[in-house]
Amino acid sequence: MEINFSSLAKLATKLRERTITAADIIEGAVANHNNGKLNAYAAWDGDRALAVARHLDGLLDKGYDTGPLMGIPFSVKDLYGVPGLPISAGTDQALDEKWSSAGPVVSNVMAQLGVIMGKSHTVELAFGGIGINDHWPTPKNPWGDGNRIPGGSSSGAGVSLCEGSALIALGTDTAGSVRIPASVTGNVGLKITKNRWSNDGIFPLSSSFDTPGILCRTVEDILYSFNAMDPHNTNVDENINVDGMRFGVLSSLAAEGVDTDIADLLTSALRKIEARGAVLTSATMRNDQPAIQLFQQGGLAASELAAFLSANHPEKIARLAPIIRNRVDAANGLSAVDYIRRKSDFERMSNETAAEMAQNDFLVCTTVAISPPELSALADPNEYAKANMSVLRNTALANLLGLCSITLPIGLDRNGMPAGLMLMGRPYDEERLISAALAIEKIIGTGAEILGSSR
Amino acid sequence: MEINFSSLAKLATKLRERTITAADIIEGAVANHNNGKLNAYAAWDGDRALAVARHLDGLLDKGYDTGPLMGIPFSVKDLYGVPGLPISAGTDQALDEKWSSAGPVVSNVMAQLGVIMGKSHTVELAFGGIGINDHWPTPKNPWGDGNRIPGGSSSGAGVSLCEGSALIALGTDTAGSVRIPASVTGNVGLKITKNRWSNDGIFPLSSSFDTPGILCRTVEDILYSFNAMDPHNTNVDENINVDGMRFGVLSSLAAEGVDTDIADLLTSALRKIEARGAVLTSATMRNDQPAIQLFQQGGLAASELAAFLSANHPEKIARLAPIIRNRVDAANGLSAVDYIRRKSDFERMSNETAAEMAQNDFLVCTTVAISPPELSALADPNEYAKANMSVLRNTALANLLGLCSITLPIGLDRNGMPAGLMLMGRPYDEERLISAALAIEKIIGTGAEILGSSR
Repeated sequence: MEINFSSLAKLATKLRERTITAADIIEGAVANHNNGKLNAYAAWDGDRALAVARHLDGLLDKGYDTGPLMGIPFSVKDLYGVPGLPISAGTDQALDEKWSSAGPVVSNVMAQLGVIMGKSHTVELAFGGIGINDHWPTPKNPWGDGNRIPGGSSSGAGVSLCEGSALIALGTDTAGSVRIPASVTGNVGLKITKNRWSNDGIFPLSSSFDTPGILCRTVEDILYSFNAMDPHNTNVDENINVDGMRFGVLSSLAAEGVDTDIADLLTSALRKIEARGAVLTSATMRNDQPAIQLFQQGGLAASELAAFLSANHPEKIARLAPIIRNRVDAANGLSAVDYIRRKSDFERMSNETAAEMAQNDFLVCTTVAISPPELSALADPNEYAKANMSVLRNTALANLLGLCSITLPIGLDRNGMPAGLMLMGRPYDEERLISAALAIEKIIGTGAEILGSSR
Repeated sequence: MEINFSSLAKLATKLRERTITAADIIEGAVANHNNGKLNAYAAWDGDRALAVARHLDGLLDKGYDTGPLMGIPFSVKDLYGVPGLPISAGTDQALDEKWSSAGPVVSNVMAQLGVIMGKSHTVELAFGGIGINDHWPTPKNPWGDGNRIPGGSSSGAGVSLCEGSALIALGTDTAGSVRIPASVTGNVGLKITKNRWSNDGIFPLSSSFDTPGILCRTVEDILYSFNAMDPHNTNVDENINVDGMRFGVLSSLAAEGVDTDIADLLTSALRKIEARGAVLTSATMRNDQPAIQLFQQGGLAASELAAFLSANHPEKIARLAPIIRNRVDAANGLSAVDYIRRKSDFERMSNETAAEMAQNDFLVCTTVAISPPELSALADPNEYAKANMSVLRNTALANLLGLCSITLPIGLDRNGMPAGLMLMGRPYDEERLISAALAIEKIIGTGAEILGSSR
């Protein structure tokens, strides 16, 4: 018995009109969780959520309003500290309790009395785009035949939205870890520009590229969430339309090797927005190839993770699953000089990309180039590594080159799996990025409207 | 059975350590209210406060923290809208319900789950510094023989702190309405620079000079409150000392006609801070006389109030108490040209004052020049008018000339009534103003240490 929730904005209004209670919402989220049938969570916290909801109703009845996130159910990736909940960051053992302290993102959610339903699964140390974790069962992506990857590293985040146990999912995105799971589960995912939101209170993977991000069922809900969570308080324009908006459709790397049916879904979506006045031009990125090449050589993340673990959690290294540990160990082969040169190359390429972006308002491509693989096909480490690079290639461009980015659903592929359209915007240009995505969503429809139901 | 509360910072720590509960705090505030023996409130809301406190404990027990004001009892001047509570702004009839909507200051308090104990008394439409209201009983100032004025216009604010039913009192200050009641009740009062905090949701007296303000028992508590309430998030330096700080001790208008014993209390306090390295110089303000002269002629407030009432609440005018109505009616004799010239004179004088302030970090004088009068001496309208001008003269300088300002206790006068030291700081310089006041408080002691107990 799934409870269908309306948009966050409508839900918030009804909550304040008292035509729905916080207890109704959280009871619905608990019912949708259905004792964890989709295995979205590493730690479920339904009882606390229900107790909190009852206090919220008491406060709302007394005229107290703690902000737009009040009473909204959240799933929180197990990389974030949440007071009162264990954290393992996807490793095989709980981390020290200090990692359960809330950083600014979670503090803001809890201060507004957003209701945390539990800690969603993550790839071990968030190091991978597929969504598999050797220590933990894989969250079940309900789309298609039910045997395909949930996407990672925020592997429980998209699934928590699919089951309806959360309406906002907190994720992190170092190379696509918000947008990949959002795309393959038919949701919307927003990756924040580096440094716009604090990473404090989040277990680090790559100090150079880690960013927080959020997943919601619609762009409309992303807009609501962003307005409520962004500390810069810049409200997004909801009434913009695509007329005259300039989209650079990537014809270079991000368009290579894209499955034909997924390419067609993108083309069809783009035709619809072109018909409404969007200006589409073919675009290339001068730094896409060199950035991805450095990424495939290990980028910066492997060295940064290895340095962090050896300094702070040396005991963890030997316990890492092989697919993670191999990359951490391999980082020891990189010299400081090479690391510094790579980092400076990424900085230069990011600056050049920001300048290049002046030609277009946004760059567009498919979020994931291939149909989400079947889990059974990834048991072989080489197959895993290949698939991992395939799903990460397009999304990683935004991280490596300093952009903000969003994915939204455009249809089901030949396997009945959701595919996504990815927009990349200029650094710190989230407001316009979300506006543009909303304008597109209004034309092509929401995920629920385009994809139907997974069940 | 009075409950003694520790500093806000300590209370907040204990609340989070769960060595005290929100229910303990609010039950203590209710007990201290003692069924309204001091008559601080126009509307008491203890039951809601207790119900809210129990929810706060539930939330804290579940690890949710809504911010530094969580669980702190507030009194709110009856000029501010508070959802669920009536508002009369000191007039003889409740205002329309739209005036009960919360503006930004109250919204911020309630969003952090600061607990509102009730609406504190105000002079009718906040138009007067004595604290008398013909429609409502006068809050009882517990100091001295108990027959002296509570100060106005935030007449219930200081008294609510004296009785311990609130630890932060929201007031407004158009010519001294926060600092006068703070000074005569032995508390600390902060007047915010015009436009730094929004006046939305506060019934207006003078659009040119109205400012929000807060009263607390100590400067330390003012610092805590300001850090929690100021939307600019600039934390005040707590560790500054007076060594090298430049205080201009006013020798012009603000020093004239000051009661000898009060002047001596100021001198004694100043000697103590001078001994710790403060640089005291004799200072004058070129615009003090002309500003106060315009103020005594009706300033801008009378015209602005008359315009607001005639446009929005014409029915209120005939019902005003004579001491208020006389001034509203008199405003009709001022021409538009004269009003505009006055306004522009105040603007020019404010600019000149800001420039003049470069010579000193702060200006200093007594907050109120005279011992707080006995209530029985003010029945005659002429005596009232004279006393009103006397108590307002020094405080009004900060409003008329665009400064921020704070008062803190320095001792008891010959009548056993508290006297205050007033600092004026540059526009938007609240952080340094509070730092300086804290440094002084650390040297001379808090109100409780200097004054002892009123009971």
